[in-house]
Amino acid sequence: MPHIELNSAEPGIRGLLRYRPETAAPLSELAEVLLRGPGTLTRGERELIAAYVSSLNDCRYCAASHSACAAAQLPGGMAVVEQVCVTPAAAPVSAKLKALLAVAAAVCDSGHAVTSEHIDRARAVGATDLEIHDTVLIAAMFCMFNRYVDGLATAAPDDPASYAAGARRLITQGYLPPPASSPGHQG
Amino acid sequence: MPHIELNSAEPGIRGLLRYRPETAAPLSELAEVLLRGPGTLTRGERELIAAYVSSLNDCRYCAASHSACAAAQLPGGMAVVEQVCVTPAAAPVSAKLKALLAVAAAVCDSGHAVTSEHIDRARAVGATDLEIHDTVLIAAMFCMFNRYVDGLATAAPDDPASYAAGARRLITQGYLPPPASSPGHQG
Repeated sequence: MPHIELNSAEPGIRGLLRYRPETAAPLSELAEVLLRGPGTLTRGERELIAAYVSSLNDCRYCAASHSACAAAQLPGGMAVVEQVCVTPAAAPVSAKLKALLAVAAAVCDSGHAVTSEHIDRARAVGATDLEIHDTVLIAAMFCMFNRYVDGLATAAPDDPASYAAGARRLITQGYLPPPASSPGHQG
Repeated sequence: MPHIELNSAEPGIRGLLRYRPETAAPLSELAEVLLRGPGTLTRGERELIAAYVSSLNDCRYCAASHSACAAAQLPGGMAVVEQVCVTPAAAPVSAKLKALLAVAAAVCDSGHAVTSEHIDRARAVGATDLEIHDTVLIAAMFCMFNRYVDGLATAAPDDPASYAAGARRLITQGYLPPPASSPGHQG
Protein backbone atom coordinates (compact mmCIF):
# COMPACT_ATOMS: atom_id res chain seq x y z
CA MET A 1 0.00 0.00 0.00
CA PRO A 2 1.42 3.41 -0.91
CA HIS A 3 2.78 5.55 1.95
CA ILE A 4 0.46 8.43 0.98
CA GLU A 5 -3.14 8.50 -0.19
CA LEU A 6 -3.10 8.80 -3.97
CA ASN A 7 -6.04 9.92 -6.10
CA SER A 8 -6.12 6.83 -8.31
CA ALA A 9 -5.38 3.11 -8.21
CA GLU A 10 -2.71 3.41 -10.92
CA PRO A 11 0.50 1.55 -10.07
CA GLY A 12 4.12 2.75 -9.94
CA ILE A 13 5.00 6.16 -11.24
CA ARG A 14 1.67 6.48 -13.06
CA GLY A 15 -0.16 7.02 -9.77
CA LEU A 16 2.43 9.60 -8.69
CA LEU A 17 2.23 11.49 -11.99
CA ARG A 18 -1.52 11.68 -11.64
CA TYR A 19 -1.28 12.80 -8.00
CA ARG A 20 1.05 15.75 -8.67
CA PRO A 21 0.55 17.14 -12.21
CA GLU A 22 2.90 20.07 -11.51
CA THR A 23 5.89 17.72 -11.20
CA ALA A 24 4.51 15.20 -13.71
CA ALA A 25 4.99 17.68 -16.56
CA PRO A 26 8.78 18.17 -16.27
CA LEU A 27 9.36 14.53 -15.24
CA SER A 28 7.53 13.30 -18.34
CA GLU A 29 9.30 15.79 -20.60
CA LEU A 30 12.70 14.72 -19.26
CA ALA A 31 11.92 11.05 -19.96
CA GLU A 32 10.63 11.90 -23.44
CA VAL A 33 13.78 13.87 -24.40
CA LEU A 34 16.24 11.32 -23.03
CA LEU A 35 14.51 8.06 -23.99
CA ARG A 36 12.76 9.02 -27.24
CA GLY A 37 14.17 12.33 -28.48
CA PRO A 38 16.64 12.66 -31.37
CA GLY A 39 19.85 10.79 -30.60
CA THR A 40 22.43 8.33 -31.89
CA LEU A 41 21.58 5.64 -29.34
CA THR A 42 18.48 3.75 -30.45
CA ARG A 43 15.34 3.97 -28.35
CA GLY A 44 15.81 0.29 -27.51
CA GLU A 45 19.36 0.92 -26.29
CA ARG A 46 18.23 3.81 -24.10
CA GLU A 47 15.37 1.77 -22.64
CA LEU A 48 17.90 -1.01 -21.95
CA ILE A 49 20.02 1.42 -19.89
CA ALA A 50 16.84 2.41 -18.01
CA ALA A 51 15.91 -1.24 -17.37
CA TYR A 52 19.45 -2.13 -16.26
CA VAL A 53 19.69 0.77 -13.79
CA SER A 54 16.21 0.02 -12.41
CA SER A 55 17.23 -3.60 -11.97
CA LEU A 56 20.42 -2.60 -10.12
CA ASN A 57 18.30 -0.36 -7.88
CA ASP A 58 15.90 -3.25 -7.33
CA CYS A 59 12.88 -1.20 -8.46
CA ARG A 60 10.46 -3.87 -9.60
CA TYR A 61 7.94 -1.55 -11.28
CA CYS A 62 10.48 0.47 -13.29
CA ALA A 63 12.60 -2.57 -14.15
CA ALA A 64 9.60 -4.49 -15.50
CA SER A 65 8.21 -1.48 -17.31
CA HIS A 66 11.44 -0.47 -19.07
CA SER A 67 12.48 -4.08 -19.71
CA ALA A 68 9.22 -4.44 -21.64
CA CYS A 69 9.94 -1.21 -23.56
CA ALA A 70 13.51 -2.36 -24.34
CA ALA A 71 12.46 -5.88 -25.33
CA ALA A 72 9.92 -4.55 -27.81
CA GLN A 73 12.51 -2.32 -29.51
CA LEU A 74 15.74 -4.36 -29.38
CA PRO A 75 16.92 -7.21 -31.58
CA GLY A 76 16.88 -10.29 -29.35
CA GLY A 77 13.93 -9.08 -27.29
CA MET A 78 13.46 -10.00 -23.64
CA ALA A 79 16.17 -12.68 -23.66
CA VAL A 80 18.81 -10.02 -24.30
CA VAL A 81 17.30 -7.64 -21.72
CA GLU A 82 17.36 -10.35 -19.07
CA GLN A 83 20.94 -11.30 -19.92
CA VAL A 84 22.06 -7.65 -19.69
CA CYS A 85 20.47 -7.34 -16.24
CA VAL A 86 22.34 -10.42 -14.97
CA THR A 87 25.70 -10.45 -16.78
CA PRO A 88 25.99 -7.37 -18.99
CA ALA A 89 29.61 -8.09 -19.98
CA ALA A 90 28.56 -11.40 -21.56
CA ALA A 91 25.37 -10.15 -23.23
CA PRO A 92 25.05 -10.03 -27.05
CA VAL A 93 25.11 -6.24 -27.35
CA SER A 94 27.67 -3.95 -28.97
CA ALA A 95 30.99 -3.12 -27.30
CA LYS A 96 29.87 0.50 -27.16
CA LEU A 97 26.64 -0.35 -25.36
CA LYS A 98 28.53 -2.59 -22.91
CA ALA A 99 30.90 0.27 -22.08
CA LEU A 100 27.96 2.65 -21.59
CA LEU A 101 26.19 0.11 -19.35
CA ALA A 102 29.34 0.03 -17.20
CA VAL A 103 29.16 3.84 -16.93
CA ALA A 104 25.49 3.57 -15.93
CA ALA A 105 26.27 0.98 -13.24
CA ALA A 106 28.92 3.29 -11.78
CA VAL A 107 26.40 6.17 -11.70
CA CYS A 108 24.09 3.96 -9.59
CA ASP A 109 26.79 3.66 -6.95
CA SER A 110 27.72 7.34 -6.94
CA GLY A 111 28.69 10.11 -9.31
CA HIS A 112 32.23 9.78 -7.95
CA ALA A 113 32.34 6.12 -9.04
CA VAL A 114 32.50 7.15 -12.72
CA THR A 115 36.23 7.18 -13.51
CA SER A 116 38.35 8.41 -16.41
CA GLU A 117 38.89 4.72 -17.22
CA HIS A 118 35.14 4.22 -17.72
CA ILE A 119 35.07 7.19 -20.07
CA ASP A 120 38.24 6.22 -21.96
CA ARG A 121 36.90 2.71 -22.47
CA ALA A 122 33.60 4.05 -23.84
CA ARG A 123 35.40 6.48 -26.18
CA ALA A 124 37.73 3.72 -27.41
CA VAL A 125 34.73 1.76 -28.71
CA GLY A 126 33.13 4.75 -30.38
CA ALA A 127 30.97 6.51 -27.78
CA THR A 128 30.58 10.23 -28.38
CA ASP A 129 30.57 12.90 -25.70
CA LEU A 130 26.82 13.34 -26.13
CA GLU A 131 26.22 9.59 -25.77
CA ILE A 132 28.30 9.59 -22.58
CA HIS A 133 26.40 12.63 -21.30
CA ASP A 134 23.04 11.08 -22.03
CA THR A 135 24.01 7.73 -20.50
CA VAL A 136 25.06 9.44 -17.26
CA LEU A 137 21.84 11.47 -17.18
CA ILE A 138 19.57 8.51 -18.06
CA ALA A 139 21.18 6.50 -15.25
CA ALA A 140 20.90 9.44 -12.83
CA MET A 141 17.27 10.01 -13.86
CA PHE A 142 16.42 6.40 -13.03
CA CYS A 143 18.20 6.73 -9.68
CA MET A 144 15.56 9.44 -9.14
CA PHE A 145 12.55 7.59 -10.58
CA ASN A 146 13.40 4.35 -8.74
CA ARG A 147 13.65 6.17 -5.39
CA TYR A 148 10.45 8.11 -6.10
CA VAL A 149 8.47 4.98 -6.94
CA ASP A 150 9.76 2.81 -4.08
CA GLY A 151 10.23 5.62 -1.54
CA LEU A 152 6.46 6.15 -1.65
CA ALA A 153 5.82 2.39 -1.73
CA THR A 154 3.68 2.42 -4.87
CA ALA A 155 2.14 -0.77 -6.18
CA ALA A 156 3.89 -2.97 -8.77
CA PRO A 157 1.60 -5.40 -10.65
CA ASP A 158 2.72 -9.02 -10.84
CA ASP A 159 1.30 -9.68 -14.30
CA PRO A 160 3.90 -9.29 -17.11
CA ALA A 161 1.04 -8.60 -19.54
CA SER A 162 0.30 -5.29 -17.83
CA TYR A 163 3.89 -4.13 -18.42
CA ALA A 164 3.77 -5.28 -22.04
CA ALA A 165 0.57 -3.27 -22.52
CA GLY A 166 2.19 -0.24 -20.87
CA ALA A 167 5.20 -0.62 -23.17
CA ARG A 168 2.97 -0.65 -26.25
CA ARG A 169 1.36 2.57 -25.06
CA LEU A 170 4.72 4.26 -24.32
CA ILE A 171 6.21 3.15 -27.65
CA THR A 172 3.29 4.47 -29.67
CA GLN A 173 2.30 7.54 -27.62
CA GLY A 174 5.49 8.50 -25.76
CA TYR A 175 6.01 9.76 -22.23
CA LEU A 176 4.24 13.09 -22.47
CA PRO A 177 0.90 13.07 -20.64
CA PRO A 178 -2.33 13.64 -22.53
CA PRO A 179 -3.95 17.03 -21.84
CA ALA A 180 -5.00 17.23 -18.16
CA SER A 181 -8.50 15.96 -17.47
CA SER A 182 -8.60 15.34 -13.70
CA PRO A 183 -7.37 17.34 -10.72
CA GLY A 184 -4.37 16.12 -8.73
CA HIS A 185 -3.80 16.25 -4.95
CA GLN A 186 -6.07 18.43 -2.87
CA GLY A 187 -3.15 20.13 -1.03
CA MET B 1 38.40 18.44 -15.60
CA PRO B 2 34.98 17.36 -16.87
CA HIS B 3 34.78 13.91 -18.51
CA ILE B 4 33.29 15.46 -21.66
CA GLU B 5 34.08 18.64 -23.56
CA LEU B 6 31.54 21.25 -22.50
CA ASN B 7 30.78 24.45 -24.41
CA SER B 8 31.47 26.81 -21.49
CA ALA B 9 33.67 27.12 -18.41
CA GLU B 10 30.64 27.24 -16.10
CA PRO B 11 30.98 24.95 -13.07
CA GLY B 12 28.72 22.20 -11.75
CA ILE B 13 25.28 21.76 -13.21
CA ARG B 14 25.40 25.17 -14.89
CA GLY B 15 27.88 23.89 -17.48
CA LEU B 16 25.71 20.81 -18.09
CA LEU B 17 22.52 22.85 -18.50
CA ARG B 18 24.27 25.03 -21.05
CA TYR B 19 25.65 21.98 -22.90
CA ARG B 20 22.29 20.25 -23.35
CA PRO B 21 19.41 22.78 -23.49
CA GLU B 22 16.88 20.05 -24.38
CA THR B 23 17.33 18.41 -20.95
CA ALA B 24 18.03 21.71 -19.18
CA ALA B 25 14.44 22.86 -19.72
CA PRO B 26 12.65 20.04 -17.82
CA LEU B 27 15.42 19.77 -15.21
CA SER B 28 15.12 23.48 -14.43
CA GLU B 29 11.33 23.36 -14.37
CA LEU B 30 11.38 20.41 -11.96
CA ALA B 31 13.70 22.28 -9.58
CA GLU B 32 11.55 25.43 -9.85
CA VAL B 33 8.30 23.59 -8.99
CA LEU B 34 9.75 21.59 -6.11
CA LEU B 35 12.05 24.18 -4.54
CA ARG B 36 10.18 27.42 -5.21
CA GLY B 37 6.61 26.62 -6.32
CA PRO B 38 3.55 26.98 -4.09
CA GLY B 39 3.84 24.76 -1.02
CA THR B 40 3.57 24.58 2.76
CA LEU B 41 7.26 23.94 3.33
CA THR B 42 9.18 27.23 3.12
CA ARG B 43 11.70 27.72 0.35
CA GLY B 44 14.42 27.70 3.00
CA GLU B 45 13.23 24.31 4.32
CA ARG B 46 13.14 22.83 0.84
CA GLU B 47 16.65 24.13 0.06
CA LEU B 48 17.79 22.64 3.37
CA ILE B 49 16.55 19.20 2.27
CA ALA B 50 18.44 19.70 -1.01
CA ALA B 51 21.64 20.72 0.82
CA TYR B 52 21.36 17.82 3.26
CA VAL B 53 20.86 15.20 0.53
CA SER B 54 23.73 16.66 -1.54
CA SER B 55 25.93 16.55 1.54
CA LEU B 56 25.03 12.89 2.17
CA ASN B 57 25.84 12.14 -1.47
CA ASP B 58 29.14 14.01 -1.06
CA CYS B 59 28.40 16.30 -4.01
CA ARG B 60 30.51 19.35 -3.22
CA TYR B 61 29.05 21.65 -5.88
CA CYS B 62 25.37 20.97 -5.09
CA ALA B 63 25.93 20.91 -1.31
CA ALA B 64 27.67 24.30 -1.36
CA SER B 65 25.19 25.79 -3.79
CA HIS B 66 22.03 24.70 -1.94
CA SER B 67 23.55 25.33 1.51
CA ALA B 68 24.01 28.93 0.39
CA CYS B 69 20.39 29.07 -0.84
CA ALA B 70 19.12 27.56 2.43
CA ALA B 71 21.29 29.79 4.64
CA ALA B 72 19.99 32.92 2.92
CA GLN B 73 16.35 31.91 3.48
CA LEU B 74 16.36 30.18 6.89
CA PRO B 75 16.37 31.66 10.38
CA GLY B 76 19.79 30.79 11.82
CA GLY B 77 21.54 30.97 8.46
CA MET B 78 24.61 28.88 7.62
CA ALA B 79 25.18 27.74 11.22
CA VAL B 80 21.89 25.84 11.15
CA VAL B 81 22.56 24.43 7.68
CA GLU B 82 25.95 23.13 8.78
CA GLN B 83 24.50 21.62 11.92
CA VAL B 84 21.76 19.86 9.93
CA CYS B 85 24.36 18.36 7.60
CA VAL B 86 26.36 16.95 10.53
CA THR B 87 23.80 16.04 13.23
CA PRO B 88 20.29 16.71 11.93
CA ALA B 89 18.58 15.21 14.99
CA ALA B 90 20.25 17.82 17.24
CA ALA B 91 19.77 20.81 14.93
CA PRO B 92 17.48 23.72 15.90
CA VAL B 93 14.78 22.99 13.32
CA SER B 94 11.16 21.93 13.80
CA ALA B 95 10.21 18.36 14.70
CA LYS B 96 8.39 18.13 11.37
CA LEU B 97 11.47 19.16 9.41
CA LYS B 98 13.63 16.70 11.37
CA ALA B 99 11.22 13.88 10.51
CA LEU B 100 11.25 14.90 6.83
CA LEU B 101 15.06 15.06 6.82
CA ALA B 102 15.05 11.47 8.11
CA VAL B 103 12.81 10.48 5.18
CA ALA B 104 15.20 12.26 2.80
CA ALA B 105 18.21 10.43 4.25
CA ALA B 106 16.44 7.10 3.73
CA VAL B 107 15.70 8.01 0.10
CA CYS B 108 19.44 8.54 -0.44
CA ASP B 109 20.10 4.93 0.58
CA SER B 110 17.27 3.46 -1.50
CA GLY B 111 13.57 3.86 -2.08
CA HIS B 112 13.10 0.64 -0.13
CA ALA B 113 14.79 2.20 2.92
CA VAL B 114 11.77 4.48 3.48
CA THR B 115 9.64 2.59 6.02
CA SER B 116 6.13 3.01 7.41
CA GLU B 117 7.82 4.09 10.65
CA HIS B 118 9.48 7.03 8.86
CA ILE B 119 6.11 8.06 7.47
CA ASP B 120 4.20 7.57 10.74
CA ARG B 121 6.79 9.64 12.59
CA ALA B 122 6.49 12.46 10.05
CA ARG B 123 2.69 12.40 10.20
CA ALA B 124 2.71 12.39 14.02
CA VAL B 125 4.52 15.75 14.00
CA GLY B 126 2.21 17.29 11.43
CA ALA B 127 3.60 16.43 7.98
CA THR B 128 0.93 16.25 5.26
CA ASP B 129 0.84 13.72 2.45
CA LEU B 130 1.92 16.37 -0.02
CA GLU B 131 4.86 17.40 2.17
CA ILE B 132 5.91 13.75 2.41
CA HIS B 133 5.53 13.36 -1.36
CA ASP B 134 7.57 16.46 -2.09
CA THR B 135 10.28 15.51 0.41
CA VAL B 136 10.71 12.10 -1.25
CA LEU B 137 10.82 13.68 -4.70
CA ILE B 138 13.20 16.50 -3.69
CA ALA B 139 15.55 13.91 -2.18
CA ALA B 140 15.24 11.67 -5.26
CA MET B 141 15.80 14.66 -7.56
CA PHE B 142 19.06 15.47 -5.78
CA CYS B 143 20.12 11.83 -6.01
CA MET B 144 19.82 12.53 -9.76
CA PHE B 145 21.46 15.98 -9.81
CA ASN B 146 24.36 14.87 -7.57
CA ARG B 147 25.11 11.88 -9.83
CA TYR B 148 24.80 14.03 -12.96
CA VAL B 149 27.20 16.69 -11.66
CA ASP B 150 29.82 14.29 -10.24
CA GLY B 151 29.32 11.51 -12.81
CA LEU B 152 30.56 13.93 -15.47
CA ALA B 153 33.28 15.31 -13.15
CA THR B 154 32.23 18.93 -13.45
CA ALA B 155 34.19 21.65 -11.70
CA ALA B 156 33.27 22.88 -8.20
CA PRO B 157 34.71 26.29 -7.25
CA ASP B 158 36.49 26.55 -3.88
CA ASP B 159 35.41 30.12 -3.16
CA PRO B 160 32.30 30.32 -0.91
CA ALA B 161 31.59 33.78 -2.36
CA SER B 162 30.79 32.26 -5.76
CA TYR B 163 28.11 30.05 -4.18
CA ALA B 164 26.69 32.99 -2.25
CA ALA B 165 26.46 34.96 -5.50
CA GLY B 166 24.78 32.00 -7.19
CA ALA B 167 22.30 31.76 -4.32
CA ARG B 168 21.40 35.43 -4.65
CA ARG B 169 20.70 34.87 -8.35
CA LEU B 170 18.60 31.74 -7.73
CA ILE B 171 16.63 33.42 -4.92
CA THR B 172 15.79 36.46 -7.00
CA GLN B 173 15.46 34.91 -10.48
CA GLY B 174 14.58 31.28 -9.81
CA TYR B 175 15.71 28.10 -11.55
CA LEU B 176 14.14 28.66 -14.95
CA PRO B 177 16.75 29.54 -17.59
CA PRO B 178 16.64 32.88 -19.36
CA PRO B 179 15.57 32.68 -23.02
CA ALA B 180 18.18 30.67 -25.00
CA SER B 181 20.97 32.78 -26.46
CA SER B 182 23.72 30.30 -27.33
CA PRO B 183 23.68 26.89 -29.00
CA GLY B 184 24.36 23.75 -26.95
CA HIS B 185 26.35 20.66 -27.94
CA GLN B 186 27.21 20.14 -31.58
CA GLY B 187 26.02 16.51 -31.61
